[in-house]
Amino acid sequence: MQERQHIVLASRPNGIPTLENFALETTPLPECADGEVLVKMHYFSLDPYMRGRMDDTKSYAKPVGINETMEAEGVGTIVTSRSSHFQEGDMVVGRFGWTTHGVLPAEKIRRINPDDAPISTSLGVLGMPGFTGWFGLNIHGRPQKGETLVVGAASGAVGSMVGQLAKIYGLHVVGVAGGPEKCAFVTEQLGFDACIDHRQMKNADEMHKALSDACPHGIDIYYENVGGVTMEAAMGLMNRGGRVPVCGMISFYNLGGLGLGGMTGIDRLPKIWRSILVNQLSINGFIISNHYDHFPRFHEEVLGYINSKQLIYKEDIAQGIAQSPDAFLGLLQGKNFGKQLVAL
Amino acid sequence: MQERQHIVLASRPNGIPTLENFALETTPLPECADGEVLVKMHYFSLDPYMRGRMDDTKSYAKPVGINETMEAEGVGTIVTSRSSHFQEGDMVVGRFGWTTHGVLPAEKIRRINPDDAPISTSLGVLGMPGFTGWFGLNIHGRPQKGETLVVGAASGAVGSMVGQLAKIYGLHVVGVAGGPEKCAFVTEQLGFDACIDHRQMKNADEMHKALSDACPHGIDIYYENVGGVTMEAAMGLMNRGGRVPVCGMISFYNLGGLGLGGMTGIDRLPKIWRSILVNQLSINGFIISNHYDHFPRFHEEVLGYINSKQLIYKEDIAQGIAQSPDAFLGLLQGKNFGKQLVAL
Repeated sequence: MQERQHIVLASRPNGIPTLENFALETTPLPECADGEVLVKMHYFSLDPYMRGRMDDTKSYAKPVGINETMEAEGVGTIVTSRSSHFQEGDMVVGRFGWTTHGVLPAEKIRRINPDDAPISTSLGVLGMPGFTGWFGLNIHGRPQKGETLVVGAASGAVGSMVGQLAKIYGLHVVGVAGGPEKCAFVTEQLGFDACIDHRQMKNADEMHKALSDACPHGIDIYYENVGGVTMEAAMGLMNRGGRVPVCGMISFYNLGGLGLGGMTGIDRLPKIWRSILVNQLSINGFIISNHYDHFPRFHEEVLGYINSKQLIYKEDIAQGIAQSPDAFLGLLQGKNFGKQLVAL
Repeated sequence: MQERQHIVLASRPNGIPTLENFALETTPLPECADGEVLVKMHYFSLDPYMRGRMDDTKSYAKPVGINETMEAEGVGTIVTSRSSHFQEGDMVVGRFGWTTHGVLPAEKIRRINPDDAPISTSLGVLGMPGFTGWFGLNIHGRPQKGETLVVGAASGAVGSMVGQLAKIYGLHVVGVAGGPEKCAFVTEQLGFDACIDHRQMKNADEMHKALSDACPHGIDIYYENVGGVTMEAAMGLMNRGGRVPVCGMISFYNLGGLGLGGMTGIDRLPKIWRSILVNQLSINGFIISNHYDHFPRFHEEVLGYINSKQLIYKEDIAQGIAQSPDAFLGLLQGKNFGKQLVAL
């Protein structure tokens, strides 16, 4: 009898997760029912949003239950197909979880063409994170040539997409990243105009000064994917008519649930709320899974940039499912360098 | 030689303004240059945004200078015209200030038809406040029949417009107002489905409970014009895809400038910022003066509702310019009942 390995949520974290919150289990391969496919995974993706799924609070998706498999998007090869839409050998992407093998109904997976690009890109630059960057920038950011854009986690999967696209569109682009190595990558490899090392900033005032220096004409688009002092400083530099797409905030996830905050001892809400009025800002939260009708446009545009080498990507690949909890904890601390994946 | 009376900013307030911040002056009538008109005012309007103009901080408009006339929109009759576009006797609206007479260039005034409705309405239900309500609701609120809307200062010029329009459009409408008399007016005269008396609420939790009871299907549109606990409670009840037009926040104005907050000792930002993401909210600040291209559409629609008695309005009129500082301080405390005007 064949078996699979998968990682389950062993307990809910109180603040920052630890290895004890995860457990590696070996169980029989799941049954493949009519209309479903069984897939042998090659990679799955680790992303900050998974931290939110570990809490038992209202969010945009159901939390992972105790002893349930952690959620993730993965790419693999169909080994058994009980759907007329897919054949054994097809390469597909779907939310199979942190697992070596998984089963999903045909309507919940999408086929990829392995000749387009390395299959790992279907989880990164050509997958959900890249699409998140493209969608938020284009639909809610409405970029105009000559404007200034700021994005955090600039060397990451979303940030590097947002910044490189914005450069292609003719914007002045400033990234924020953690450490000199990542900042050098962001400016030298990704071509951002500047990158601020948030580890050098002692507080929001220093970040404000650094961002202000890097954005002499203010900020027109702040692509929000990190929260924290970057958000606070950027919101203080927004130009009139500025746009703030909001796709996720790593620094808030560890507050637990809806977060009581109080990190600074100051209520930052009135200041930022008033800036929304005074600067006539447009702030839009979005959950990318509701917008896959735009995916083909994204895929065509970005595949073109990859083929023409106008857009590059970086991956950070953990080897083997047993390494995934450790890689995930590192991701939450910004230890990864590039899109975090697990190879199986 | 003819004279005028006007109110100047004598000193900047520190927090809540007092009568000492204002001074009544009598000076010669201003000169009417080529292309300008001299107007004898009949009414001017008092509005919460004027509190912001009293501070010396960056906002969407230049602050009023010390010893300068307080800003206001007023309506009056042209007594001298040096513009070919206007004649003596024309009734016009413009930003003449807290004054009995004023001069403006022709391009900064608009003619009204006194046969449409009482001329005082050109400063309220058919003027800037009414337009603010109509624009925010329609353009940023995108109301759909059957949805739920919440608006604060519900008996005021903006709130009563927003709520009555939303009822006409078929929404479930809940207002927030101060005191039983205003709440009775809001439900019985304006036809809102419910009105919460914020003076009965001890804190944001009680407000949350009351709003939750009044909005069994959650909130789709929170029209933000008050801030404070109403905002905090409403933001916690937003449905997915909710919209938050932001036009002004009375409760923040007195914090001074960009406001340090700290009213509650808790940083409310992470909670609300995360709600933006989780509920995929669209939050849009707007300054109505940038959108007068929509004014004719507004005027035609709302004049129709007034003529058909589908929409009513209430005015609170102070008599004489000397009363205007007192009336303004009352407005900031919610003592007015209906659109606050000063009759001259």
